[in-house]
Amino acid sequence: MEIPRTMKALRKTKPAFGAQMVEIPVPKIQPHEVLVKVHACSICGTDVSIYEWNKWAQGRIKNIPQTMGHEFTGEIVQVGAHCTRLKIGDIVSVETHIPDNYSKQTLTGQMHIAKEMKIVGVDRDGSMAEYVAIPELVAWKNDPNMPTHLASVQEPLGNAVYCTLVTPVHGQSIAIFGDGPIGLFSVAVARAAGATTIILVGLEDFRLQLAKQVGADYVINARYENPTARIMEITQGDGVDIVSEMSGSPVAMEQCFEVVRRGGFLRMFGIFKDKVNVDINDHIIFKGITIHGINGRLMFDTWFTVSNLLKSGRLNIEPLITHKLPFEDYEEGFHLMLETPKKCSKVVLYMDREKMK
Amino acid sequence: MEIPRTMKALRKTKPAFGAQMVEIPVPKIQPHEVLVKVHACSICGTDVSIYEWNKWAQGRIKNIPQTMGHEFTGEIVQVGAHCTRLKIGDIVSVETHIPDNYSKQTLTGQMHIAKEMKIVGVDRDGSMAEYVAIPELVAWKNDPNMPTHLASVQEPLGNAVYCTLVTPVHGQSIAIFGDGPIGLFSVAVARAAGATTIILVGLEDFRLQLAKQVGADYVINARYENPTARIMEITQGDGVDIVSEMSGSPVAMEQCFEVVRRGGFLRMFGIFKDKVNVDINDHIIFKGITIHGINGRLMFDTWFTVSNLLKSGRLNIEPLITHKLPFEDYEEGFHLMLETPKKCSKVVLYMDREKMK
Amino acid sequence: MEIPRTMKALRKTKPAFGAQMVEIPVPKIQPHEVLVKVHACSICGTDVSIYEWNKWAQGRIKNIPQTMGHEFTGEIVQVGAHCTRLKIGDIVSVETHIPDNYSKQTLTGQMHIAKEMKIVGVDRDGSMAEYVAIPELVAWKNDPNMPTHLASVQEPLGNAVYCTLVTPVHGQSIAIFGDGPIGLFSVAVARAAGATTIILVGLEDFRLQLAKQVGADYVINARYENPTARIMEITQGDGVDIVSEMSGSPVAMEQCFEVVRRGGFLRMFGIFKDKVNVDINDHIIFKGITIHGINGRLMFDTWFTVSNLLKSGRLNIEPLITHKLPFEDYEEGFHLMLETPKKCSKVVLYMDREKMK
Amino acid sequence: MEIPRTMKALRKTKPAFGAQMVEIPVPKIQPHEVLVKVHACSICGTDVSIYEWNKWAQGRIKNIPQTMGHEFTGEIVQVGAHCTRLKIGDIVSVETHIPDNYSKQTLTGQMHIAKEMKIVGVDRDGSMAEYVAIPELVAWKNDPNMPTHLASVQEPLGNAVYCTLVTPVHGQSIAIFGDGPIGLFSVAVARAAGATTIILVGLEDFRLQLAKQVGADYVINARYENPTARIMEITQGDGVDIVSEMSGSPVAMEQCFEVVRRGGFLRMFGIFKDKVNVDINDHIIFKGITIHGINGRLMFDTWFTVSNLLKSGRLNIEPLITHKLPFEDYEEGFHLMLETPKKCSKVVLYMDREKMK
Repeated sequence: MEIPRTMKALRKTKPAFGAQMVEIPVPKIQPHEVLVKVHACSICGTDVSIYEWNKWAQGRIKNIPQTMGHEFTGEIVQVGAHCTRLKIGDIVSVETHIPDNYSKQTLTGQMHIAKEMKIVGVDRDGSMAEYVAIPELVAWKNDPNMPTHLASVQEPLGNAVYCTLVTPVHGQSIAIFGDGPIGLFSVAVARAAGATTIILVGLEDFRLQLAKQVGADYVINARYENPTARIMEITQGDGVDIVSEMSGSPVAMEQCFEVVRRGGFLRMFGIFKDKVNVDINDHIIFKGITIHGINGRLMFDTWFTVSNLLKSGRLNIEPLITHKLPFEDYEEGFHLMLETPKKCSKVVLYMDREKMK
Repeated sequence: MEIPRTMKALRKTKPAFGAQMVEIPVPKIQPHEVLVKVHACSICGTDVSIYEWNKWAQGRIKNIPQTMGHEFTGEIVQVGAHCTRLKIGDIVSVETHIPDNYSKQTLTGQMHIAKEMKIVGVDRDGSMAEYVAIPELVAWKNDPNMPTHLASVQEPLGNAVYCTLVTPVHGQSIAIFGDGPIGLFSVAVARAAGATTIILVGLEDFRLQLAKQVGADYVINARYENPTARIMEITQGDGVDIVSEMSGSPVAMEQCFEVVRRGGFLRMFGIFKDKVNVDINDHIIFKGITIHGINGRLMFDTWFTVSNLLKSGRLNIEPLITHKLPFEDYEEGFHLMLETPKKCSKVVLYMDREKMK
Repeated sequence: MEIPRTMKALRKTKPAFGAQMVEIPVPKIQPHEVLVKVHACSICGTDVSIYEWNKWAQGRIKNIPQTMGHEFTGEIVQVGAHCTRLKIGDIVSVETHIPDNYSKQTLTGQMHIAKEMKIVGVDRDGSMAEYVAIPELVAWKNDPNMPTHLASVQEPLGNAVYCTLVTPVHGQSIAIFGDGPIGLFSVAVARAAGATTIILVGLEDFRLQLAKQVGADYVINARYENPTARIMEITQGDGVDIVSEMSGSPVAMEQCFEVVRRGGFLRMFGIFKDKVNVDINDHIIFKGITIHGINGRLMFDTWFTVSNLLKSGRLNIEPLITHKLPFEDYEEGFHLMLETPKKCSKVVLYMDREKMK
Repeated sequence: MEIPRTMKALRKTKPAFGAQMVEIPVPKIQPHEVLVKVHACSICGTDVSIYEWNKWAQGRIKNIPQTMGHEFTGEIVQVGAHCTRLKIGDIVSVETHIPDNYSKQTLTGQMHIAKEMKIVGVDRDGSMAEYVAIPELVAWKNDPNMPTHLASVQEPLGNAVYCTLVTPVHGQSIAIFGDGPIGLFSVAVARAAGATTIILVGLEDFRLQLAKQVGADYVINARYENPTARIMEITQGDGVDIVSEMSGSPVAMEQCFEVVRRGGFLRMFGIFKDKVNVDINDHIIFKGITIHGINGRLMFDTWFTVSNLLKSGRLNIEPLITHKLPFEDYEEGFHLMLETPKKCSKVVLYMDREKMK
């Protein structure tokens, strides 16, 4: 396949709201990298933060101009000289976290939280472009038959899989706080893995309906109902075995602590604007709970689980990919996520129109 | 509820094939026991061994005459003076293993393999009778709405749940060797808990069809096909992540070792007639596998999982309860299991005809 | 052994500072209880809070008058009718947490955090008395040769064992914040279990010296040195694998979060006066840490470990039992703990003077 | 440092007993490899098998001539073009298992049992030479202050650490069957990690005395005493919590099964001449034990533990390194291990005489 000299890329070119579609050179790869022709790239909350240029983005993004995006799939069109595993023509998705190669984390199965970590689309050029260069190490080879929209969301689905299944859920009750895409993916994952009471707490009826479609036994709109009271009623006063905080809301965090049962498990995934006031005595110590801080995905245990769940057809996430747009319509995609979360969950942009169904 | 003085009981009265339906006194309870009016009792392979009076039964059964049976559900009609948890009218199923109260096992969450253990229907009178006395400790309180046939099979279902889920199966491939009731239950459990490739190896087409109905992705009749070759083909030469040996066949045991992948998990549940020759070097050490010997169920973690899986409707075991018979037709029940495994899986006997649907 | 009608007991008789030594009837036991003639009882921080009548005690203690104390050892002199395991003459120590007998926690190996829990010396009469009645369930039979002062501190030592070893420490670095008796016990436990870098952070030089005696590789007096800076230096910028918060100080809590390495473990044991402000993003999520809320001890896994560590002589805690006083000198004991933590660690009161060495 | 053109190497040059010291070219490194100037190399049982040319060696060794050896330490003198982590002058030891880079094992933290694995000194030229080429991936950077003899035995010590600590040993009883170097190392490791009853079963009094020196509470010479009877006596009839089979003797294997307690753990490490007859019913299933097949070491969790245990001085293995010989005296080294195990444990050959103390 011939590689052109230039390509379209959606870039953050100035420290302000929005992004620009520009023509730039196709990236040159390093010897340990591969060049991927991007088929599709879905929009992450992180992308929305960068687009919107919120406080977090202002503090975190060091390089401007920089190409956005990191949830993608595409085909390898060039392979660096030191690469040993992949070849031209392979269809890949990509683990966003590029680990160091020397820290204790990397050397002991915690590569995803390596001490020095670079993130695609945050610390270096991302995948909202026709081509992207990535280290071979973080490329995950897909089954070529996997539909493009599913392949492109494996990275965020991996967040949901890692977070939901960090301890087993079979036969357990689980409450998920947050109706964003990862919260909704988590409902589907919990369902596929045998959780027997699944509760989703959110704010948008549109999204709560999606949760029901993919397996929630109960949905609670926190605007209209007190989640703690409702969950204690559902669980007959015992609380739930497992709680996932996926909203980043301090109010939800407090409710999570209230509803997790004595001896239960709490996963923390949602990012907060500020520090949170925690009742360590009553909510952590006397309850004897275990808390897992969740970030990224296990490299590559989680990818095997994601891939197997999708291939087996056990995982019902189709209803959660609410919009498929051509790359050019990126403004509509970001607008959907910024302004009308009432109407969308996951939005996929297609760099290759032929891959749109 | 008035308790009669005598009752019908199916007893082993002599050391020979068969059992006798006799009228005997209703048991007197000890202060730490409850008296249960039995609604239904399903037939276990152990019961069949005792009925048939095979070599194992001859060596194991010390008391004759003794009432048979241990997989049951019923209503509490009398409560001993030292009991503190249950009351008359509670519907219960029963954990068959009556632990000691002093061993390290009992004091550290391994009650089910306590050093000195008595088994209902093996070491003391069982539940193939209108009434049975059991220690309050081993009674599990059921949701009164649970259908009788499901309530009665919770004990053997617990074997399948404990064995299958002793390490998590979500996203994993699993091969189950043995198409008896526990093997088939295990298929349903693996499906409910998110295993993504489920293979059942057996000998009876009738039972392999049941396996498909409850979730097997592949079934292999070992009479006609080489399980090792087929499984290595299915797994593209890698082997399966998890194997459960549930047949008690040395040939199957060897195949289990062959198909478990390097670093995989092997559960051993099926009982063998003799010692088995094992290639410890190639099959255990060089493969780096982990083996779990499985016996009974966790008391009471497994019971929570069983009960939640049934209540949630996630677990599809209805097709596996192939026969419901009135207590009087016990000979037909045992005949089905002894002579025509081609035509049955789990057989339930009803002491209370009104509970038959 | 003849049981007298009355006995000496140290009781909280009014809602104010202090406690009173009074003569009261020897308790009558319930059928599931045993009566213990107390040999010795050590003073817990909880006892000090009750004695001092601080805010926590005012909110928590419901019954006045009530006998204080719960860390003790003694001899069984009477056994209730329903008891099955212990007999007169057995030397016991006691698990302070009296669990319910029906909750999911109790039925699944989490008895120590049962939903409804009563604590000896907090919710019912305690062991700072010549006799105490306790449920047989929570009595732990000691080796009769165990020295009295060691037998009496097994309960708090169990806190240190459970907290320190909730995940394995062999080959790990561990930082313990808090130089109270449990913090110091934890140093000895970490040393016995193979932690390879042990750091104790405290405020009192006397106690830091004790920490060195029982195995700390580094001690840091937080009055004079910044623990975060020092620990990051010791660990060459990586942070420690495991941190135990045992001080209840919000400043220490923040330092714990700072020094735990990415992917590390944090145990929370110390009780705080108020809620604590936590940077969930940077300190829990992005670091990917696991937090265990620790309360009590596992029933009875921890007791086996405690007892084995003491019997084997691997555990060096002798230097931590700084004072042995006759029961009558209780005021001196409480004074030591309240006023001069610079001079004491664990204080043991002897109800039986012959057991003092 | 100037690299010569040729070097001394101890090679297997023909399919017969013995090995030859020859002068051969210094190896050329691949781009992903480093060249190590060997300081010292200890003799492994595997080396002895190859030297002796026993049945296993005849079936396993494919390439002759080939340089022997794999337990070593040395200094990096050349670094391949694709290497990223190490530099000239680094002192390294080496993980012997060279994994593939694509299998599920390699991608999920089980690199040490990767599907396609090459072993230094077995599948390719080893380290009984003045120089050896190895992939950067398997080099472990040592603290330059670590004594050479300790650095050189980290690989076999890693076997003992992985095997002994695959589940925690603190507060546990452990019986180790086999008094070879790994068995003896395991005693020291169990002691350092807080096992409270340590039993070593062997055949040579010299080695049993070494076991006592490094921490065994009991040693049993199976020539003169029945290990099962003695261990059941020591454990008052309960059996031990953990058993490590490190002898490769079928008699010992049977005893291991006899003495492991119900619910206990069994590690299998010793290699057998033939298949072993196992009573799966009574010894695995009814006892409810967990078996770990142990091979190699975790890459690189075990290396961190090994290195930390050595650095901290907690691990007492000095008495186990019984002989330090110059490289030229290799015949004496092999002779010691082949003929007089009564007089040796670990033997270290020095390629660099200045490193001998």
